[in-house]
Amino acid sequence: MRIVSISDADDPRLAPYVSIRERDLTGRSDGRFIVEGKVTLATLLERSLFEIESIFIGQSRLEPLSDILALLPQDVPVYVAPQNVMDEVAGFPIHRGVLACARKGEPLALDALLEAETLLVLNGISNHDNVGAAFRNAAAFGAGGVLLDEQSCDPLYRKSIRVSAGAALWLPFVRDGQGKDHIGRLQNAGFDVWAMTPRATAAELHQLKPSAKTAILLGSEGPGLEDALIDRCRPVRIAMASGFDSINVATAGAIALAHCHTCSVTGSA
Amino acid sequence: MRIVSISDADDPRLAPYVSIRERDLTGRSDGRFIVEGKVTLATLLERSLFEIESIFIGQSRLEPLSDILALLPQDVPVYVAPQNVMDEVAGFPIHRGVLACARKGEPLALDALLEAETLLVLNGISNHDNVGAAFRNAAAFGAGGVLLDEQSCDPLYRKSIRVSAGAALWLPFVRDGQGKDHIGRLQNAGFDVWAMTPRATAAELHQLKPSAKTAILLGSEGPGLEDALIDRCRPVRIAMASGFDSINVATAGAIALAHCHTCSVTGSA
Repeated sequence: MRIVSISDADDPRLAPYVSIRERDLTGRSDGRFIVEGKVTLATLLERSLFEIESIFIGQSRLEPLSDILALLPQDVPVYVAPQNVMDEVAGFPIHRGVLACARKGEPLALDALLEAETLLVLNGISNHDNVGAAFRNAAAFGAGGVLLDEQSCDPLYRKSIRVSAGAALWLPFVRDGQGKDHIGRLQNAGFDVWAMTPRATAAELHQLKPSAKTAILLGSEGPGLEDALIDRCRPVRIAMASGFDSINVATAGAIALAHCHTCSVTGSA
Repeated sequence: MRIVSISDADDPRLAPYVSIRERDLTGRSDGRFIVEGKVTLATLLERSLFEIESIFIGQSRLEPLSDILALLPQDVPVYVAPQNVMDEVAGFPIHRGVLACARKGEPLALDALLEAETLLVLNGISNHDNVGAAFRNAAAFGAGGVLLDEQSCDPLYRKSIRVSAGAALWLPFVRDGQGKDHIGRLQNAGFDVWAMTPRATAAELHQLKPSAKTAILLGSEGPGLEDALIDRCRPVRIAMASGFDSINVATAGAIALAHCHTCSVTGSA
């Protein structure tokens, strides 16, 4: 293992870890992303498609993490520093004492998702918690991938990864282009696209049997999907109590995905 | 309307609004709670059971809020201050410019919930987002109330109210006592208590038809429900993909509640 002791917060090798929160907000243009915490690091090493550039851990974490760090390629540096140096670099207290920097690499092409039986499709989801939760739900119910339009936020944002329980690190995704183009591509590839909407005229989820290939399309909280998008798809609604038809967008996705998963397992709707 | 102009951040009438975040963290022992934002204020006025003690708004918000404020009882003071005074009192920028202070009043007794057909029961849920999301889901799928043990956190915490989309303000709840006692009380009142668990031997949710009275019991994320609690109930699991059986606790509740709602509407499982 390539352990590198660091004592100076200004060490240039730690540049990717400087002021993490500020750079979360402004976005990174260097093709890198940061993960934090032991469980997420394990997922990054065991299941992800991403190339790890370095690890940055607190001195006291070296021993407890030895099992996980043994999975690292030999040439990846493990920067080790006292906790106060780590906090100074990151700009806030890194309680878990575990950070890693990885490269996003070449984005997948949309074609890579089209073999899936079930896809989750996100349109204009600009809240990182919702994107992370959507990935967690997609993974839990066996979706083959997630397709996001370019207005949706980055699943490899630190908080999205955490909320996704690491699913954003291994579930294939594409984030590019516009919802209306996605719908056409999906339909051409044989997908029945279910646009989730509270429209009264929409089909009720529990009465639908998923096709061999089903895509669940979710719009942003608040405005929801545009009519122009819904009209190109099969509008589907989740039956709710009258007077309070409001659930979180990721939760709506979970209910639709759970229905598809159950139907695929039992062979019935 | 009783409008009171305030120019001094030290005005003693604003005491309940001082340092809101710090008091969120330490908890309030004075029986009051704070809500923020226009939509939540409207819910507080239109649907809630709680007595409003005062409103505190930024000067520029008085006119746009006039419709909502017209619902206020005549004797409730509306404190109006310049935005900078408001931010100084609260201790952080109140972008929405709308705060209200209400009294919790006498807590409901558990008996008040026992007439419901569907209840959500939370055990050791110490994350305010999860409690808020659980309330939102309970409301959306027509549960008659929420029962929380004393280890679960307060639904009237500012962030829980916001995440609940206001449901915490009107959906009846009881927060008191221990899960094991709750289960006994519910069963004595005729409830079939479904303990949500990933146990392989649990019944599968989609194969179950809810009884006339069903209670959905959720444990904390991570450890989940204790075996001793699960063993007193009907263990129920949500079918998930192998290798990633992890969903958010409030999301699990949403899927179970949606199932019960659908069955009650269609009369079938």
